[in-house]
Amino acid sequence: MDMARNVPVTTGMAALETMAAELFDQIAAVSADGVGVSRPSYGDGETDAMGVLEAFAAEHGVSCRSDRAANAIFDLGTEDPDSYILVGSHMDSVPHGGNYDGLAGVIAGLLLLVDCRKNGLDPHLPVRVIALRGEESAWFGRACVGSRALAGELGPEDLKAPHRSTGRSLEACMKAVGADTAAIRRQELLLDFTKVRMFLEVHIEQGPVLVERGLPLAVVTGIRGNVRHRRIRCTGESGHSGTVPRWLRRDAVFAVSDLIMRLDEHWQTIQQHGGDLVVTVGMLHTDAEHDAMSRVPGEAEFSFEARSESDATLDAMASLLRSECEALEQARKVSFSFDPAIRSAPARCDSVVVDGLRAACRDVGFEDEAVASGAGHDASIFSNAGVPTGMIFVRNEYGSHNPREAMALDDFMAGYAVLRRFVQGCR
Amino acid sequence: MDMARNVPVTTGMAALETMAAELFDQIAAVSADGVGVSRPSYGDGETDAMGVLEAFAAEHGVSCRSDRAANAIFDLGTEDPDSYILVGSHMDSVPHGGNYDGLAGVIAGLLLLVDCRKNGLDPHLPVRVIALRGEESAWFGRACVGSRALAGELGPEDLKAPHRSTGRSLEACMKAVGADTAAIRRQELLLDFTKVRMFLEVHIEQGPVLVERGLPLAVVTGIRGNVRHRRIRCTGESGHSGTVPRWLRRDAVFAVSDLIMRLDEHWQTIQQHGGDLVVTVGMLHTDAEHDAMSRVPGEAEFSFEARSESDATLDAMASLLRSECEALEQARKVSFSFDPAIRSAPARCDSVVVDGLRAACRDVGFEDEAVASGAGHDASIFSNAGVPTGMIFVRNEYGSHNPREAMALDDFMAGYAVLRRFVQGCR
Repeated sequence: MDMARNVPVTTGMAALETMAAELFDQIAAVSADGVGVSRPSYGDGETDAMGVLEAFAAEHGVSCRSDRAANAIFDLGTEDPDSYILVGSHMDSVPHGGNYDGLAGVIAGLLLLVDCRKNGLDPHLPVRVIALRGEESAWFGRACVGSRALAGELGPEDLKAPHRSTGRSLEACMKAVGADTAAIRRQELLLDFTKVRMFLEVHIEQGPVLVERGLPLAVVTGIRGNVRHRRIRCTGESGHSGTVPRWLRRDAVFAVSDLIMRLDEHWQTIQQHGGDLVVTVGMLHTDAEHDAMSRVPGEAEFSFEARSESDATLDAMASLLRSECEALEQARKVSFSFDPAIRSAPARCDSVVVDGLRAACRDVGFEDEAVASGAGHDASIFSNAGVPTGMIFVRNEYGSHNPREAMALDDFMAGYAVLRRFVQGCR
Repeated sequence: MDMARNVPVTTGMAALETMAAELFDQIAAVSADGVGVSRPSYGDGETDAMGVLEAFAAEHGVSCRSDRAANAIFDLGTEDPDSYILVGSHMDSVPHGGNYDGLAGVIAGLLLLVDCRKNGLDPHLPVRVIALRGEESAWFGRACVGSRALAGELGPEDLKAPHRSTGRSLEACMKAVGADTAAIRRQELLLDFTKVRMFLEVHIEQGPVLVERGLPLAVVTGIRGNVRHRRIRCTGESGHSGTVPRWLRRDAVFAVSDLIMRLDEHWQTIQQHGGDLVVTVGMLHTDAEHDAMSRVPGEAEFSFEARSESDATLDAMASLLRSECEALEQARKVSFSFDPAIRSAPARCDSVVVDGLRAACRDVGFEDEAVASGAGHDASIFSNAGVPTGMIFVRNEYGSHNPREAMALDDFMAGYAVLRRFVQGCR
């Protein structure tokens, strides 16, 4: 793609900002749950929110229809193009979530279409917008259902997954909102990914980096994959804390602490060599039934998670976890047992798209900050389906998945300006 | 004291061993609880066990009476001597405990008296035996009640402590078995400690050292004191594990692991310089309500205990705990909050008594192994009351405070032989 520079980007921005503010407010209102917002995947809050967008589209001359997975597609009514830019994100939220996670990216896409219709924005490639359903795993224990359905990646087991509170199957809920669940169960490809010239997703940052760095937005370099164990058990031998000397100890807590510090050293080393990595032991417990202040702990259980943009780094951390555990089995006379590792592949953002988005940042006057995405996104499904993919993160306070998530409208419009600038220049 | 060497120690040993075996069996029978033994402090099992010893004493010409704290005193009927050797241990057990913890030391003492009466053993100093009540903290949350009562160390708050299952006060239970609770409440001294030339306690080892070293017994060098915190809280900040980079993490688990490894290094250093120390983090938990595999843990709670024969080492570890936490507050952007430290002073075994007991070991043909006691004992009350004190540990498998504790009668008799040899030589 080439970038056509020096096109003014401020045409009608104030009007677009007002539209965006109204859409955010209307959707917050239809999905309010008393605490935050709840837009259950394939449920009422999600459908109601899509209804608000549909009405908005109708009002502004944007056409809207459902795809075969019950996602909403918006465009300017063009015939099926051979090549188009797909922009979008998801409509659902976690229970008691915030208003911006997902929704910001759909609204940013819709602003593009209104900008074309009203302000004479005329990108070389046609733009389509997708409002995906079912991205949050909170409801059915499955993430990115709406995009995975398009890619033929939902299996029969996924479709049986029960809703967290009603117990109704994912399949039944998808069918109820009009999805072609027979085709989905057959894992048909429901979108011709070859025609998608690129997929662009604007999303709030779910971490604190942009707030800490004082930047309104950043370009995403890739979506971290991960390797996880929900439960690793370290077994030593319990004993009277006063009577078992150091040389006879088989202390599970000292062994696990030693392991964590060894992994911490590897983490530092990998980062010092430019690698992308985060390591987390989110859960760590001695045996609550038998532990005591004066008892050498004979058992500890903990979770392990490494996330990285690089598959090789994930491989390395998975290997280092095993080898350090083996070393500690010798050094501290304990044993480790592992539940099966869960692996999720990293997704790359396309380097040409990333470079283009960073250039667009500079063009509209922002720093071209680049960050990794630690959370998963629908973008990764498109990337892994072979579509050149890019993401823009918008600054957001207090993290996501909670009612306090806070994206300033100014920052959203900064993200939109970068998106607009980039789309405008794409050929 | 001088040691008179080369006195034969085998006179009547086989008969004494048979008596000991019968006493252990009889007392196991009267305090059996279906799982192990239960001899509640100031309760029936303890009293019944004392009844067995009383009958044994009567049968073998040993006199028996209660002291003002309802402990049993055995001697050869001598008038109140100005200076005597006191030998003994405790009668009570934990719930579902083993038969040897405490009882072994009382029976060893009684064998001495029978040995004098029947075999012509004639030590220079008269011997008294004390069967103490109430040593185990399992029943009233107070340890060494029987010996502390003698030393005027039980306060009104202690006497109010409720029985773990009946809720009846310690005072009521002590009074019911004949203790002078009015005097105890006034914290009167109920024993003239100045007349106790030394206190000797035989006890099963509650740790694994002698089993590991293949030795039947050892001389105790001192009883470790301790410094403890039941709950230290490390507070960082929780967050999405994928989206919070290393430089913004305030991870409570990494901070606590770092702390434990720093303490582990200090432990090693102190031991390498000859210090006595054990360090235990028996309980360690992330916040079970909010922790998750993919959540940076914002909170962890843990216990801390250091035990040492040296007050200076305990001081050092208490200081190192605080200084390492302060360092980690800077290094890992967390904070630590502490419940009040609980401190228990170490008790020394008298160096002349220790040397004499080690010489006695060599005299009767055993290695003169010396070990620290990690658990508390009545001996520490006598030591802290100014009585020169010594202890002999007898090998015991599977630890104590459980029905599996296993002391071989051969090992017990080895311990008795050392006790006999030492007492015989004392002036």
